Amino acid sequence: MKDIEIAQKVTPAPITEIAAKAGLSADEIDQYGSAKAKVKLPLPRKSTKRKLILVTSINPTPAGEGKSTVTIGLGDALTKIGKSTMIALREPSLGPVMGMKGGATGGGYSQVIPMEDINLHFTGDMHALTAANNTLAALIDNHIQQGNELGIDQRRIQWKRTLDINDRALRRIVIGLGGPTSGVPREDGFDITVASELMAILCLSENISDLKTRINRIVIGYTHDRQPVTVADLKVGGAITLLLKDALRPNLVQTLAHTPAMVHGGPFANIAHGCNSVLATQAGLNLADYTVTEAGFGADLGGEKFMDINVPAVGQAPDAVVIVATIRALKMHGGVALADLGTENVAALQQGAANLGHHIHAMQQYGVPVVVAINEFTADTEQEIQAVKDYCANLGVEAVLADVWGQGGAGATDLAKVVVKLADQPSEFKPLYAASDSIEAKVNAVVTKIYGGANVEYSGKAKRQLRSFVKYGWDNLPVCMAKTQYSLSDNPKLLGAPTGFTIKVREFVPKLGAGFIVALTGNVLTMPGLPKHPAALDMDITADGKISGLF
Amino acid sequence: MKDIEIAQKVTPAPITEIAAKAGLSADEIDQYGSAKAKVKLPLPRKSTKRKLILVTSINPTPAGEGKSTVTIGLGDALTKIGKSTMIALREPSLGPVMGMKGGATGGGYSQVIPMEDINLHFTGDMHALTAANNTLAALIDNHIQQGNELGIDQRRIQWKRTLDINDRALRRIVIGLGGPTSGVPREDGFDITVASELMAILCLSENISDLKTRINRIVIGYTHDRQPVTVADLKVGGAITLLLKDALRPNLVQTLAHTPAMVHGGPFANIAHGCNSVLATQAGLNLADYTVTEAGFGADLGGEKFMDINVPAVGQAPDAVVIVATIRALKMHGGVALADLGTENVAALQQGAANLGHHIHAMQQYGVPVVVAINEFTADTEQEIQAVKDYCANLGVEAVLADVWGQGGAGATDLAKVVVKLADQPSEFKPLYAASDSIEAKVNAVVTKIYGGANVEYSGKAKRQLRSFVKYGWDNLPVCMAKTQYSLSDNPKLLGAPTGFTIKVREFVPKLGAGFIVALTGNVLTMPGLPKHPAALDMDITADGKISGLF
Repeated sequence: MKDIEIAQKVTPAPITEIAAKAGLSADEIDQYGSAKAKVKLPLPRKSTKRKLILVTSINPTPAGEGKSTVTIGLGDALTKIGKSTMIALREPSLGPVMGMKGGATGGGYSQVIPMEDINLHFTGDMHALTAANNTLAALIDNHIQQGNELGIDQRRIQWKRTLDINDRALRRIVIGLGGPTSGVPREDGFDITVASELMAILCLSENISDLKTRINRIVIGYTHDRQPVTVADLKVGGAITLLLKDALRPNLVQTLAHTPAMVHGGPFANIAHGCNSVLATQAGLNLADYTVTEAGFGADLGGEKFMDINVPAVGQAPDAVVIVATIRALKMHGGVALADLGTENVAALQQGAANLGHHIHAMQQYGVPVVVAINEFTADTEQEIQAVKDYCANLGVEAVLADVWGQGGAGATDLAKVVVKLADQPSEFKPLYAASDSIEAKVNAVVTKIYGGANVEYSGKAKRQLRSFVKYGWDNLPVCMAKTQYSLSDNPKLLGAPTGFTIKVREFVPKLGAGFIVALTGNVLTMPGLPKHPAALDMDITADGKISGLF
Repeated sequence: MKDIEIAQKVTPAPITEIAAKAGLSADEIDQYGSAKAKVKLPLPRKSTKRKLILVTSINPTPAGEGKSTVTIGLGDALTKIGKSTMIALREPSLGPVMGMKGGATGGGYSQVIPMEDINLHFTGDMHALTAANNTLAALIDNHIQQGNELGIDQRRIQWKRTLDINDRALRRIVIGLGGPTSGVPREDGFDITVASELMAILCLSENISDLKTRINRIVIGYTHDRQPVTVADLKVGGAITLLLKDALRPNLVQTLAHTPAMVHGGPFANIAHGCNSVLATQAGLNLADYTVTEAGFGADLGGEKFMDINVPAVGQAPDAVVIVATIRALKMHGGVALADLGTENVAALQQGAANLGHHIHAMQQYGVPVVVAINEFTADTEQEIQAVKDYCANLGVEAVLADVWGQGGAGATDLAKVVVKLADQPSEFKPLYAASDSIEAKVNAVVTKIYGGANVEYSGKAKRQLRSFVKYGWDNLPVCMAKTQYSLSDNPKLLGAPTGFTIKVREFVPKLGAGFIVALTGNVLTMPGLPKHPAALDMDITADGKISGLF
């Protein structure tokens, strides 16, 4: 049965009931239809236990890891064993939904619903971000058109336009053609909306004031004498904040088993920090005893960024970390081809487990307890499962089998019990680096301690930028690494647990509003394209509203 | 006091109460927060009286006519004299809100609320249209990129991208640069979202099936051998319809006096038909005894299109037409400069009244009763008001003074009584032309009977297009004139009631999904620009959510 068919068999409980389960009165939410709501700010604070569980994973492979599915299933399992629980997830981007994926709300019996709405326009957050992003872009070009009082160098504008669409034809464009009444010609390009700095800002902001302060700090470009120009200089921080006033409020939905879930924010895990909003996580902490959240891609990307960028904003570190792995994916890390994953191969599995081992070690450095979730697939053999358990036991870590796709929460109660045990024991979070460290020291810490690399190499441009950042006073910010998700190194083909490699930083992108410095390694695509057969071709809606093709 | 200050003094009634007033149960709506809702489809049918009032106006001038304000004030006045009433209005576009206007929800004591939400993202209809429009655009360019099976001529793609933003730098652009992985280079451009054919389609569709049928009919471009390519050919009609499933449902809000109002759809009155959605109007007819709606610009543009394009889709003609005029605007039509409008000038007024007289005559040709609403301004003198009343009396039409800005519904009860009297008497609608007439005959009918022009001249391109339309079988569609709103002629400087002029049609644009053929006269701007001091610069939101700068 397809995910959408499973989802359509469950009638969502009225969102007021889900809110009540989470301890929210009808006055504390704004309904968006019968099964979605936004939580009003400031967030009420009702729980004192406030345990935070971070779900991350090994380096993703084409075999699939099912991190969101495990996050949702674990949330349902915690509820099932009697714990007050909230799930916090990123919201899907429409571009990939129409392209490859057809949906991003979990799978099987571990889904958040109404999946059709969440995968399409949801409560309009992405669209508000697109509108805010492009209003700012139009105001920048209009400033230049109307006399350019600030002296903005049109060749050095950093602020790009965005759409929540996979549209490769907009990656590189020329705008302002058609004569003097139609703007000043210049090179430009569109990113996908989730790659906008505004998305990162929305996800890191505590409240409207913080949102406005961050927006005003955005560097939109440079003057002809290389001075940064900010949104504050343009005097439009108020208008851009106004456009995001509702998008800032976390969205409440439910799982198939009616566990409350906050689905809010979704910054690109490539060039931003890849975690749901701080306010969604805080809503969970404030309302439930256990909050389960996930971070984008593997523990080297989303996991690291959660610890070094998100934790200071949330104001709390995870009490336990779940690393998701599948037998299939570990076999790929051990050198098995996609077509051969159905065949038992314990030797390859043991070799590929080094990738998992590396991530366990990386997360343990932060001083938080770790458990491995083996996301069960039907072809997994007993020997293979035992091999992973043994491998983890050797590292002093439990590995627990979970069948969240097939059974929902019932398939993850063992995992839930281990998570509760770990989260309830005292732990002490140790950050990877100090804010006062230099940018180079921060990059070096991530590369050597988290990726297992040997060296960092900087391009001439990156070196020049580092000098200018010191001058501008931007060197106290954390770094946000942009690296391939497929390997611990910057070479996507290097699977398993490579060592001795060098990471090349070709450029930095200062994101002053988000409050981090992006370090670009390799090619980072900020506007995806559509495949030869986009998912959109198979989507339909009948006269009476029945939807198909969202997987 | 500013409009936003007046609006912020009124607490909206819970939208469930407004729905109940309109005869809708809580199950028949989906709430979007506490003061907005979408009405579920199919629409319930509860009223049998079903009287429809169309509000239109003289040719607009920089002096301002206040048509929306009169529409809202009249709705409140009808409620005040005890009539079951619904207002149906277009929803504002964010582009102009951020640019010149700062808001489009009426004024003074005749406003719809929550004005901040309606003027910003509202229930997401505009954003859904932007997303649907641009998803289609990305699918077209992707089709070409992936082999171009349909043989689309990239130089003849008609489907443009859109944003709900005034962004002149996107009017003419080059896309697909950056090498073979980033698309096929071609000229392109962005329109404002309200100019998208999808907006016109949304506003003319009866239900999901009709919406999908219309979307599939859209001509997105032509093949190398000049055959039209449709959305159906691309096989993405289902996905695009799916993206508009919620946007199709009319939005329910309220006036300051708590009269129910449907605010839904807003096609560009320049190159589309400029009326709120058919479903919003039908919701009014189904639920209330009197439905007051408005059409964009003057009676020559929005009024004519309401009669010839909207009436067949609504399935009902207006029972009365209100033509809004102001003393100030009529003096401008009589040759008075903007700076001198504060001075009494009965002679100029009498001369300018010819513009009003012309529109009265044009509307009467449709066989519907007409009343003139004089929208009162403080500088109007008794002599001037009497002069307009006398002018109209000579034409056998009543002119009624209405102070809707200053008094809301209480300022328009006299107007409401005349409207009820006219609407309750029998009338017989006569269409201007038959569907079977040729396109030339239809254009000719509009130009001679509605504009008062003498001739129509077609460019060589327009003539060639007319021949191809006959070949494609498109000549049975109505025409949708794109003409300046400032004059009855195609010269915006020709005020009053010019005669003997020729209208030049330079090009036709077939809108097969909307179901009309656009005739372009003069220059039609489909992407506005921002002014030197955009309204956005004055907008703000405080830490506790108080909004300013939306006028």
